[in-house]
Amino acid sequence: MKKPIYLDNATTTRTEPEVIKAMEPYFLDYYGLPTTEYGHSFGLKAKEALEEARETIARSVGAEPQEVVFTSGATESNNLAIKGLALASKGKKHLITSKIEHSSVLNVVKSLEKTQSFKAGYLNVDEEGFLDLEQLKNEISKETLLVSIQHANQEIGTIQDIKEIGEICKEKGALFHVDAAQSFTKLPINVKEMKIDLLSISSHKIHGPKGIGALYVKEGVSLKPLLEGAYQEFGLRSGAENIPGAVGFGKAVELADEKQIAHMEKLRDRLIDGLLETPNSRLNGPRGKGRLCNNANITFKYVEGESVLLHLDMRGIIVTTGSACFSRTLEPSHVILALGLKHEDAHGSVRFSLSKFNTMEEIEYTIENVKDVVGQLRGISPVGR
Amino acid sequence: MKKPIYLDNATTTRTEPEVIKAMEPYFLDYYGLPTTEYGHSFGLKAKEALEEARETIARSVGAEPQEVVFTSGATESNNLAIKGLALASKGKKHLITSKIEHSSVLNVVKSLEKTQSFKAGYLNVDEEGFLDLEQLKNEISKETLLVSIQHANQEIGTIQDIKEIGEICKEKGALFHVDAAQSFTKLPINVKEMKIDLLSISSHKIHGPKGIGALYVKEGVSLKPLLEGAYQEFGLRSGAENIPGAVGFGKAVELADEKQIAHMEKLRDRLIDGLLETPNSRLNGPRGKGRLCNNANITFKYVEGESVLLHLDMRGIIVTTGSACFSRTLEPSHVILALGLKHEDAHGSVRFSLSKFNTMEEIEYTIENVKDVVGQLRGISPVGR
Repeated sequence: MKKPIYLDNATTTRTEPEVIKAMEPYFLDYYGLPTTEYGHSFGLKAKEALEEARETIARSVGAEPQEVVFTSGATESNNLAIKGLALASKGKKHLITSKIEHSSVLNVVKSLEKTQSFKAGYLNVDEEGFLDLEQLKNEISKETLLVSIQHANQEIGTIQDIKEIGEICKEKGALFHVDAAQSFTKLPINVKEMKIDLLSISSHKIHGPKGIGALYVKEGVSLKPLLEGAYQEFGLRSGAENIPGAVGFGKAVELADEKQIAHMEKLRDRLIDGLLETPNSRLNGPRGKGRLCNNANITFKYVEGESVLLHLDMRGIIVTTGSACFSRTLEPSHVILALGLKHEDAHGSVRFSLSKFNTMEEIEYTIENVKDVVGQLRGISPVGR
Repeated sequence: MKKPIYLDNATTTRTEPEVIKAMEPYFLDYYGLPTTEYGHSFGLKAKEALEEARETIARSVGAEPQEVVFTSGATESNNLAIKGLALASKGKKHLITSKIEHSSVLNVVKSLEKTQSFKAGYLNVDEEGFLDLEQLKNEISKETLLVSIQHANQEIGTIQDIKEIGEICKEKGALFHVDAAQSFTKLPINVKEMKIDLLSISSHKIHGPKGIGALYVKEGVSLKPLLEGAYQEFGLRSGAENIPGAVGFGKAVELADEKQIAHMEKLRDRLIDGLLETPNSRLNGPRGKGRLCNNANITFKYVEGESVLLHLDMRGIIVTTGSACFSRTLEPSHVILALGLKHEDAHGSVRFSLSKFNTMEEIEYTIENVKDVVGQLRGISPVGR
């Protein structure tokens, strides 16, 4: 099999060779379990590596190391943040989130409504995916325990005004959780300046290993752990520490830089411009500063996204339709629907994700082939034109 | 630093070079997310690898692939099994476990007593750590939702009669969870013959990567997922699949064989014989068939386990005292106390774990040095003799 051009959401999950190299000693040599004052020297070596990774990650979002809890990924981080807070809290029973969150936020909020008698508000977004902040101001109250809003959207790349939302939350005394799985290392994040209390991040979205993520928990915020046991990770997340994973995650953070962001922005803008030359196509989400550097999402009217995907696959180009997580079902994307688009537009939407490894040559090849595939599919479609 | 002789519980967590080699293509090339019928070819390649690993693991315990759920490790598996069942169940509110379980079982059961009004029985063990089956028969009733018993103990290696316990559970209509983190691939396990409904296993205990484990869930047993989101792993465990981890776990299972068990047994018996030549020493747990192939646990009277640990560390030998998970505190081991030993005996206990990588030469060197260290410490101890 020739190596394909990855433009689906796996493109960001290619583990860096340098990351693997950094992990190797902790697989093969320093595989001890971290210990503290009563431990042995090789356990301390493992502990040091863990704490160094924790520090790198903390520093990258303006947090203190003791505020960073390692988890198995962003899904666990989102669950621990929202469910952990809800189960620890006595009194306040109101949550606010948005209609375009990742399923690991939406389904947790829905689950708390169903089983723990929480009430939840799901904020609307405009046709580009930006949150209705007036609605937030109207719905937030002294009864609101938590507002959970993503930094950037997983399908259309819309970036929310986290600083502004953080201020609204503080004013009303609500805690603020941000799912930054998409934006981490791609947008500046400072938990103090943005008044964030809980922040979810993931390793495999930034070319680190799969199976590890972290949750920033502001000092003083109490959570009930979901995984109980031997009290690792400040008692918030039990289980033998995944040292190679943490080391690889830390390395991936170190390897991320601003030049890569500029590179991805350039590719993204050319891809969007090129694809919009196709007749009856529409960009989902905003252009420019309001959009994540590595996302493009286009609806091609009168074709099925799935057909585009399969034809591009045969030409060595990997893309996603709707949300990848849901692409195994035929359910239309809840994000595209929230923008006010119709079911058939959701089905015709194709998502392109870029990584620092993609090249302009790949983008030009992709533009050419997408145009060709869409044209051919419309030629044979009963509603085609 | 010269490489030490690992005889602490990290000895089993050295990742095999072959395991790393098996994982590498899924880090670097086939890093796609698993997809099914609507997916692209490289996603299918990743999916195939995941399902192959699932099949290998299922086969090794006599289960069907669709009964195996990947988790982040044994702690998560134990939490999902017990908490997931408790939260899904309507009616039955009684749990039974033992006093010598791992903290990720004990603390979950205690948590359910506190927050979900469950009642729990903690079975006694005899002076070798074997469960009191008469007590089990007396305490189990039609009201018992779940019996959770480990296959082999994490500190003293005592192997429970899982088949017999499984039969008692079936007779009373209670479900049966087995924490097999210690025994997996070291003892034969067949979930059908042993009448097991839920089985926790871990990768890093068998030289697979850290950060991955699995839970066998018998077809028809309903659990409430702890991590909610995009419905991966049959809806029981959301989060992007850790494909390299699963592949490495599967490889580690393939690499385990009976010759290694015989090798470890031989080392274990020599180690126990050699160490018991020290005056005022006592083996914790049974000898022979009732003991896990890779465990030795000795109490040296009149010395602190921590002092033995530190002195052996200086001589390049890594051991554990009490339970490793608790060795960062000065709390005595709950397992040693459950055997009926006194606090000071718990503090003087040293745990030796073996892996297939250890050699007879290392064992002889260890025996010699332990004798020497214990002798010296007793010489300077105020209660020494």
